[in-house]
Formats: sequence, structure tokens, C-alpha cells
Amino acid sequence: MLQFRPAAPGDWPAIWSIMEPVARAGETYCWDTSMDEEAGRLEWLPGAAGTDPTLAVFVAVDEGTGRVVGTAQLHANRGGNGSHVSNASFLVAADAGGRGVGRALAGHVLEEARSAGYTAMQFNAVVETNTRAVALWTSLGFTIVGTVPGAFVHPAEGPTGLHIMHRFLQPSR
Amino acid sequence: MLQFRPAAPGDWPAIWSIMEPVARAGETYCWDTSMDEEAGRLEWLPGAAGTDPTLAVFVAVDEGTGRVVGTAQLHANRGGNGSHVSNASFLVAADAGGRGVGRALAGHVLEEARSAGYTAMQFNAVVETNTRAVALWTSLGFTIVGTVPGAFVHPAEGPTGLHIMHRFLQPSR
Repeated sequence: MLQFRPAAPGDWPAIWSIMEPVARAGETYCWDTSMDEEAGRLEWLPGAAGTDPTLAVFVAVDEGTGRVVGTAQLHANRGGNGSHVSNASFLVAADAGGRGVGRALAGHVLEEARSAGYTAMQFNAVVETNTRAVALWTSLGFTIVGTVPGAFVHPAEGPTGLHIMHRFLQPSR
Repeated sequence: MLQFRPAAPGDWPAIWSIMEPVARAGETYCWDTSMDEEAGRLEWLPGAAGTDPTLAVFVAVDEGTGRVVGTAQLHANRGGNGSHVSNASFLVAADAGGRGVGRALAGHVLEEARSAGYTAMQFNAVVETNTRAVALWTSLGFTIVGTVPGAFVHPAEGPTGLHIMHRFLQPSR
């Protein structure tokens, strides 16, 4: 079973152990593949100068082992008159893949987004070749609004598209 | 005639005089409509902590009067394996509208983007009701990749879409 809670500063080593291989692979996020740990922390955790004040970060903890097996960011996708639309990012430990962690964490974050008053969620850059992610988001009610051609250079597949995906959120009761 | 050059720190008062009414109106940018001058400076000019290191800012100067009548930002739309796609933002002085300043400044920025090695330009959030901007970008070769429904609350028109627009850039010769 998984437990979800806000990330604490002490979760950083576990988060970085999940994040670093994703950054190095360069297959799913538009991050510098040589990103060091401090840049990773600035990217993922709130608190640094210039950090988006709407940013909230969560972790998924395996209740059996107490281990952090996934993490997610939630924040406003834009400011001002666009701040009702949320954005989220997800990371799951490589050795926890295929066990539904991403789906469960996404369900939690969608609930958190509703609770925070967001009325939609948008992903700006879902790599087209990341078919597992596209299938997951589609199954969770997201649609592909459009695909920016060649906007991502996959290290193995070469130029590929970045999907913009979106779904509305019903208010929490 | 217009002259284009990189923005200098001394251009800030002129830029803010163009930017402030756009922010207050809240019709075209996803900025906090009560944004103060310092927040505006952090939004538009490079140099603050956390500023995108790829950011370049330009001004359009009326050669007759020496007055700054427009300004533009150019930067990478994403990092890592998405950093070959540029993004740009434009502001034109209200009393210089309808004189082709936006079009000429866009032409300059597209050239700068090519020179910097970007192979495409993407706009992430063109307000659907901003038909003049949509027509300008379309005439400059941009296509609408998709429209995020209701992603912007226009102060007069209510919920409206945000277009993602894109065009490829040929390399400079």
C-alpha cells in the first residue's frame, strides 16, 4: 500500500535517487542531462529564490518499507488570469515501475489540485515516444490538445513531438 | 524607421511604461494584474536570481524620436533536449499600435532566434480573443498547434482558449 504526503526536506536524497536517472536518460523531461544535484533540488523542491509560490511537492511512500517510491509537483501552470489551470510533474522509482505507483500518485495529485481550487490540469510537454505516460494520462481523462512537432530530441529516437495534454477538474465536494 | 537593439538597464522605465498598462488590462498575458514594477522587472529583464540564462531582451526604438516603442523577450522554450525551440514575448506601446511595430519587431526577433541557432519558435499561450496577435503570427508563418479550452479568463469576455502556436526556423546563412 502507498501513503501520500507533502515532501519534507529530509526526502531530498530519496527524491534525487529517483530523479537523477531520469535526468541522465534524457528521454522524458526537458532537463539538462548533466544536471547536478543542486540544480535538481532547485528544479523539484520549493523554497529557492524565484521558486513558484504555488508549488507543492508530494511523495508516495511504500507503507511496507517506508521507502519513497514516487514524487510529484503541483503548481499553477500560468499566472494571473491563467492561474486556475494546474500543472503537475511525476517521477516514479525505476524499480517501482509497473506497480501502479504513477497512477495512484496521479490520482492523489488530481485530488489535491481539486482541493486547491484548480479547475483543470495541463501538461505542457509529454514526450510523444513516452507511450506509457500518454496511455496513463489518456486513461485518466486527459486529451491531447496538440503536438508540437520535433520539439524534443530523444537520445535514441531523434526528433519527436511534445504533446500538450489537458483535462478539466470537477470541484471537490 | 525603427532601430532594434538589445535592451539596456536604462531602458527599464520606458519598458515598464509599455508593460504596466498591458499587465493592468489582463487581456493578453498571464500576469498578475496588480503586478508591481519590481515584479515586472523580474518578469521581463534578465539578471535576477533564477533568471533563465538563455533570456535575451530587445527594444524597438523610433529613430525619429529616440523613444522605445516596443520590446521583446527571446529565450529557450524548454531546457535539455527541448532547448532548440525558442519562445518569444512582445510588447508594443499602446500609442504606437497599428504602425507595424509588432510585425517589424517580430521579424527582428525571428532573425535573432535563427542566429542563436534555434530551429523553431513556439508560443505557449496566445489568448484566443487576441485576434490581432493570432492574425499577425499566422501571417508570419505560425500555425495553431492546439488550443487549451478555457485556460484564460478574459476580464471582459470570460473563459477563453489559449493557443499554442509554432513555426520552424530555417538556419541563418
